[in-house]
Amino acid sequence: MLAPLYQIGEKETMVVELISVGTEILLGNIVNTNAAYLAERLAGFGMSVYFQETVGDNPERLYTVLKQAKDRSDVVILSGGLGPTQDDLTKETAAKVCGKGMHEDQKAKQCLIEYFKKTKKTASEISENNWKQAIVPDGSIVLYNDNGTAPGIIIEADDGKKVVLLPGPPHELIPMFEKQVAPYLCGIEQGVLYSKVVKIDSIGESAVEMAILDLINEQSNPTVAPYAKPGEVHLRITAKAKDEEEGEKLVMPIVEELKRRFGRHIFTIEEHVTMEEALVDMMIRHHLTFATAESCTGGLLAGRLVNVAGVSECFNEGLITYANEAKMKYLGVTEETLKEFGAVSAECAKEMSEGLAKKTGADITIATTGLAGPGGGTKDKKPGLVYISCTLHGKTTVQRHQLNGNRDKVRHTAVVRALTLMRHTIIHEYE
Amino acid sequence: MLAPLYQIGEKETMVVELISVGTEILLGNIVNTNAAYLAERLAGFGMSVYFQETVGDNPERLYTVLKQAKDRSDVVILSGGLGPTQDDLTKETAAKVCGKGMHEDQKAKQCLIEYFKKTKKTASEISENNWKQAIVPDGSIVLYNDNGTAPGIIIEADDGKKVVLLPGPPHELIPMFEKQVAPYLCGIEQGVLYSKVVKIDSIGESAVEMAILDLINEQSNPTVAPYAKPGEVHLRITAKAKDEEEGEKLVMPIVEELKRRFGRHIFTIEEHVTMEEALVDMMIRHHLTFATAESCTGGLLAGRLVNVAGVSECFNEGLITYANEAKMKYLGVTEETLKEFGAVSAECAKEMSEGLAKKTGADITIATTGLAGPGGGTKDKKPGLVYISCTLHGKTTVQRHQLNGNRDKVRHTAVVRALTLMRHTIIHEYE
Repeated sequence: MLAPLYQIGEKETMVVELISVGTEILLGNIVNTNAAYLAERLAGFGMSVYFQETVGDNPERLYTVLKQAKDRSDVVILSGGLGPTQDDLTKETAAKVCGKGMHEDQKAKQCLIEYFKKTKKTASEISENNWKQAIVPDGSIVLYNDNGTAPGIIIEADDGKKVVLLPGPPHELIPMFEKQVAPYLCGIEQGVLYSKVVKIDSIGESAVEMAILDLINEQSNPTVAPYAKPGEVHLRITAKAKDEEEGEKLVMPIVEELKRRFGRHIFTIEEHVTMEEALVDMMIRHHLTFATAESCTGGLLAGRLVNVAGVSECFNEGLITYANEAKMKYLGVTEETLKEFGAVSAECAKEMSEGLAKKTGADITIATTGLAGPGGGTKDKKPGLVYISCTLHGKTTVQRHQLNGNRDKVRHTAVVRALTLMRHTIIHEYE
Repeated sequence: MLAPLYQIGEKETMVVELISVGTEILLGNIVNTNAAYLAERLAGFGMSVYFQETVGDNPERLYTVLKQAKDRSDVVILSGGLGPTQDDLTKETAAKVCGKGMHEDQKAKQCLIEYFKKTKKTASEISENNWKQAIVPDGSIVLYNDNGTAPGIIIEADDGKKVVLLPGPPHELIPMFEKQVAPYLCGIEQGVLYSKVVKIDSIGESAVEMAILDLINEQSNPTVAPYAKPGEVHLRITAKAKDEEEGEKLVMPIVEELKRRFGRHIFTIEEHVTMEEALVDMMIRHHLTFATAESCTGGLLAGRLVNVAGVSECFNEGLITYANEAKMKYLGVTEETLKEFGAVSAECAKEMSEGLAKKTGADITIATTGLAGPGGGTKDKKPGLVYISCTLHGKTTVQRHQLNGNRDKVRHTAVVRALTLMRHTIIHEYE
C-alpha cells in the first residue's frame, strides 16, 4: 500500500479540489450540498480546499476541468456522474485523465450483486446497463456503496496524485466518505481516523474560537477545527490512531476539556444529531412532554421538532395562535395584556406559554410572539423583535431578542433561539 | 456603444461562466444561491453556462480562475468580493486580468454618497475604506447599487470579452442583474428586455415540456424556457423590444397561449410571487379565512403560509394535532374512525378538515395526516403515504399521495401538495 498521504499536524497541508458533476447542479435545479459537506470535513482534517468547480455531464469539459485540478492539487474529489446511464461519464473521463485503462472488477460486481440482493430485486428487474458500474479504471481502489448501486473509486495516478470518485446522492456519498475515503486521505492504512464533533449553541463563532485559541495553537494529534452553521458552531476533534480505542483515548480528553469550557452550551457530541434531535432526546430521557404555541414562527418551530422521527413519544399537540383572538381563545391571554403591552411583549409571551401549559398539561411549553416584518414596526418595537417564553412545571422564563434579517431569516432564527431556550431550561432543572 | 452581444433567437449562443468569490462559500459556511439564480436566468435567455467555479478571497487563485474563464467564455460573471475591506480584491484582480488601470469614478462615488444619504449615515459613521468602492477599472461601465454600497461593474476587455462584477448579497445582486446586467447581456442599448414568468403547479417538467414543444421549436423572439423547482415548473418568456409596450405586445400572446394550455395549473405570472403568496392573495381577494390542522407536516404548512407578509388578513389560527388524542380533542375525529381506518386514512383526514371548520369557523380548512417515515409502515400503508383533506364551506375533497424520499422530503412535498389542493379548491368554487 501507499505511504501516508498526510500526517495530521504536519505543516504542509494537503490540497484538495472538489468537482461537482451534473447538469442539474450546473443549471441550479438542485442545490449543491455535497461540496459544502466535503469542504467542512476536509477543513476539519486541516486540508486545504482552494478551488471548487461545477461542470455538466459533458466529457470534454469534464476532462478539461479534471486535468487542471489534478495538475494543481494533490487530491481531486469528484461527486456525481457514476450512475448506469449513458450520460454518466465521470469514471471514463477520470481514467483518461489518469492514463488508465478500464476493466470489469469482481469486487465492484459483487457490490452490485449484494446491493440488488439487499433490495430484493430479481434478475429481470436489473437492467443491463447497471453492470456498466462494475467497470473500473485499472489499478484503482473500489469503494463499497452500502446505499446505492454505483461503487466509489480511488484512482492513484502515476504522478502520485489521487482522484476520488463518489456517487452524487448525499446518502450514498456521506457514509462512503466517512468510512472509506476519510481514513484513506489521512494516510490511515492499518489504523483508524477517530473523530468527534462537539456542537455548541448560542455562542458566536469568533467567541468560540477565542475560547479555544490555546487548543488550536497547541494541536498536533488530535486537531481541533471550528465550523459555523446558522445558530450553532461545531468543533471537530480528529485523531490518527492505530485503533478505535487509541483514537478515543486521544480525542476524549479534548472533548472533556471542551465540555469544561462550554458546559451546557454543548448540545451533542454525536455526528448526526441535530439541535432538535438533541432536545427531543433529552425530553424523552426525562419523560417530559412538550407543546408549542407559535405566533411569528407560525408553525416552523413545531415543524422542525416534528422532523425528529420518534417525536410522538413526547409531542401531542401544538397551536398556531397568529391572531390576538386565537391567543385569547386557546391560551387565555387576557385582553388587558394585549391592550396594555401588545401581542409582541414579554407579558403576552408569558401568558401564552403558561396558558398553553394549562390547556395541554404538557410538562414544558414554549411560545413565540414577535414582529417578523417587514412592516408593522413602531418606535419602540422594530421588526425583528421577538419574545420567547418557556414554562416548565409552572416556572416561566421569558427572553427578548432583537433579530436581524428579512422576515424569513427572523422567523428561522427565532426557532433556533426557542429550541435553545427549551434545552437550557430543562438542563437548569434536571441536569 | 457596443453592437448587441447576443440576439435572441440566433443559433450561436453566448457562453457565460460564473465565478463565486468568497472563503465562506468555498468552505461551505454559506450556501451559494447566487450561482443557481444566475444559471436559471441565463438559461432563460438561451445563453449557455458550461462551468462554474468557487474560489476564496485570494487574488492569485482568483486571477488564475478568471483568466481561464475569460479565455474560454464570452462573458464571465463574478459575484462577491466587492466590499470595502482589505480582502475584497475582485475588482483589482479583474482589472489586472483585463489589462486595465484603475481610477476613482465620479458616478461610483455619487452612488456611495446617495446610498449613505438614503441610509441616513453621517460623515463620521462612514469609514474611510468605503471610498475604495468608488475606484473602478478604466473604461468600465458602473452599475448602480440601490441596496448596498458596492457598485457593480462591467469591464469590456479589448478582446471583446466582458467581465461583470456583482456584489455578493442576493438582495443587491438580483435587482442589479435584472435592471442593468440582463438588458446589457442581451444587447439592449436603446430598447428593453421584456420578460414574464409563468409558474405552474402539479405538472412535472417533462409533461410541461411536451405540452409546449411547438412553442419551444418555433421560438425566436420571444423565447420560452422551462425551469423546474420542487413541486413547480416555471416557464420564462423573454422578448427583446424597443420599449416596454412593444415587449408586452410580443410576450403577452404567448402568456395567453400558456394560460389556455395550462389553465388553473398556473398560479402566478408575477416574477417574485411564490406559491404561498399566490394562495394567500387569492384568499384575501375572495375574503376567505383559512385554518390548518397538521399531523405529519407538523406545522410546516402553516409555517410556509405565515411567511407571507399580510397573511394576518386571512389567518387566525392553526393546529398541530400530532397525537390521536389531539385529533379527537381539537377536531372531533371519532375513536371509531381511528380504530377502523387508522390516523393515516382518507376518513381521518376528512374528519380533521371538517372538524377544523367547525372548531374555527374558517371558510377553508386544510388537514394533513400521513406516514413521514422512516419507520411506522405496514403492508398496506408505506412510508410516504399522505392524505390531504380540504373543506371549503362544507364541501370536502380528500387526496391520497404516495410520496418519495426521506422524512424531510415527504413532509415538504406534502406541504406543496396541500397548498396546491387549497388553490385548486378555491378556483373550482370561485373562478
